[in-house]
Amino acid sequence: MTAAHLSRAVLAVDLGGTAMKGAVVDEDGRTLARRTVATPSHAVETALIELFAELRDLAVAAAATPVGAAVVTPGSVDESRGVVRYASNLGWQNMPLLDVLASALSLPVAVGHDVRAAGLAEQRFGAARGRDDFVLVPIGTGVAAALVTGGGTVIGATGAAGEFGHIPVIPDGEPCACGQRGCLEVYVSGAGLARRYAAAGGGERSSREIVARLGADPVADSIWAEAVGVLAQGLNILTLLLDPGVIVLGGGFSRAGDALLEPLTERMTSGLAWRERPEVLASELADGAGRVGAAILAFRAAGLGDVIDTWPAASVSSAVRVEVR
Amino acid sequence: MTAAHLSRAVLAVDLGGTAMKGAVVDEDGRTLARRTVATPSHAVETALIELFAELRDLAVAAAATPVGAAVVTPGSVDESRGVVRYASNLGWQNMPLLDVLASALSLPVAVGHDVRAAGLAEQRFGAARGRDDFVLVPIGTGVAAALVTGGGTVIGATGAAGEFGHIPVIPDGEPCACGQRGCLEVYVSGAGLARRYAAAGGGERSSREIVARLGADPVADSIWAEAVGVLAQGLNILTLLLDPGVIVLGGGFSRAGDALLEPLTERMTSGLAWRERPEVLASELADGAGRVGAAILAFRAAGLGDVIDTWPAASVSSAVRVEVR
Repeated sequence: MTAAHLSRAVLAVDLGGTAMKGAVVDEDGRTLARRTVATPSHAVETALIELFAELRDLAVAAAATPVGAAVVTPGSVDESRGVVRYASNLGWQNMPLLDVLASALSLPVAVGHDVRAAGLAEQRFGAARGRDDFVLVPIGTGVAAALVTGGGTVIGATGAAGEFGHIPVIPDGEPCACGQRGCLEVYVSGAGLARRYAAAGGGERSSREIVARLGADPVADSIWAEAVGVLAQGLNILTLLLDPGVIVLGGGFSRAGDALLEPLTERMTSGLAWRERPEVLASELADGAGRVGAAILAFRAAGLGDVIDTWPAASVSSAVRVEVR
Repeated sequence: MTAAHLSRAVLAVDLGGTAMKGAVVDEDGRTLARRTVATPSHAVETALIELFAELRDLAVAAAATPVGAAVVTPGSVDESRGVVRYASNLGWQNMPLLDVLASALSLPVAVGHDVRAAGLAEQRFGAARGRDDFVLVPIGTGVAAALVTGGGTVIGATGAAGEFGHIPVIPDGEPCACGQRGCLEVYVSGAGLARRYAAAGGGERSSREIVARLGADPVADSIWAEAVGVLAQGLNILTLLLDPGVIVLGGGFSRAGDALLEPLTERMTSGLAWRERPEVLASELADGAGRVGAAILAFRAAGLGDVIDTWPAASVSSAVRVEVR
């Protein structure tokens, strides 16, 4: 073992409704340590501060100096002020997260939006490398999107842009948990797929199990075909509005591989009469994209935004592995 | 009459499929002269050069010095290179319009996209004054959109962004002239309204006549209600994706006034369960928006982009009137 050298590192957390995924990332883009804990049902900010304290200890244990921290969250996020305007599954409304964390951690802090941060990571190190116009569509329990146009991410007048899962695609369609009807994620998400499969008489199965039964289970085939059709419609809407150079699919759905990509691109092409279909790719960073995005935001907050220019994409992709030196 | 003083002016043309609307606009934002001619069925570029020559004569007759020129066109436009990639109703494919005009006119020239230029005009002088996040949706024979996010207009990877009229809103819906099915403008545009009214047994009437019969003609009421429903769905899609602070409606449809705005905003609100509906306003510059946008682009091409900062919005709005000194 060689003598440890002291590197600079940031503490990055991807905060979701069920888990808080934390990592220590050094200035070379390597993940020095990871720590994931369950998201509590209340006082999330207290648990988040504790997680950052653990990450700080892990950084020091890995012979790194913490220089900044960032958290990315779902909901409506005002990134410039560091305020989470509204995040239903975190119980937050107008939470001044940047101020809360900055005073608790005594480090430069950034607060970002999870999907927009994932888009930033895919743009720098993933499937959208070097693209100025693309969309990232993570499809998991729900569906969202990071919309990147002209090199910048669309944030919107109130920080609420990118609600791709809740665009109304089927007029007077099935009710969504959000209170609207005919939302895209009613048909396309993991939760929607499982619910519609059960309602069609297929029984209680997870979306992953349903995908595994394709070709052998007519109910699975039928529900999947509807999901692919609605997703193709939604992606064609994005294509006609934003003209992305590439569409990157993330989340659990993207792991369906060719069972998704082949029928999806075929449906998209047949729906577009006079313009070409953009390329459709699977995410390269997968579940790590939000955390990599948080690490980028943290280095920027520390005034070290340039360090990421030196990160080899391969080492970032490997950030899904735990690397403790 | 006072002695004429020599002012600087630009030649601005809004080039459409049926008419080429030209104007001479001076550095104070006043329209010194206007000239509109029919768009020919072929050799549009030759007719356009002739129109610019006439506008130049009109500028000189109005004691103004032409310092720049701009044309805004429909289709897919590469504004940075000044190339119209594709415009079906002008018969153009990869037309190097900037080069053609610059050599014919010996003036600084800009080439823009008609709807994006109209959005720029509404942002500077119209209903979206001072807004960084808004959409302009002109609804006439067809439907388009200028999407402005974070202060910039969405152009897309190939210059084809903003095709709001052709987003698929009704899965497997009625065929569109574009070759796709269920496009928004099948239901919402002037042409779509007239066609669907006739198909429903109402007879041959223009969309304006159909709107005039609302409340007295059940067929008109039914076709209009469907149009309003589809437009509400489309605007809610824009709202959830882009989070605009205001939606500005332009084109002939916006002249329907409360017959449009009241049921439309009601339908939008009922379709949105958990976020507020953005403000919906009628365009202030109406048909003049494209021409005002072209004038702005021409002053920028002339290196005089700053002059528009001094234009009083009122004098720009009055640009629809002919003012020859």
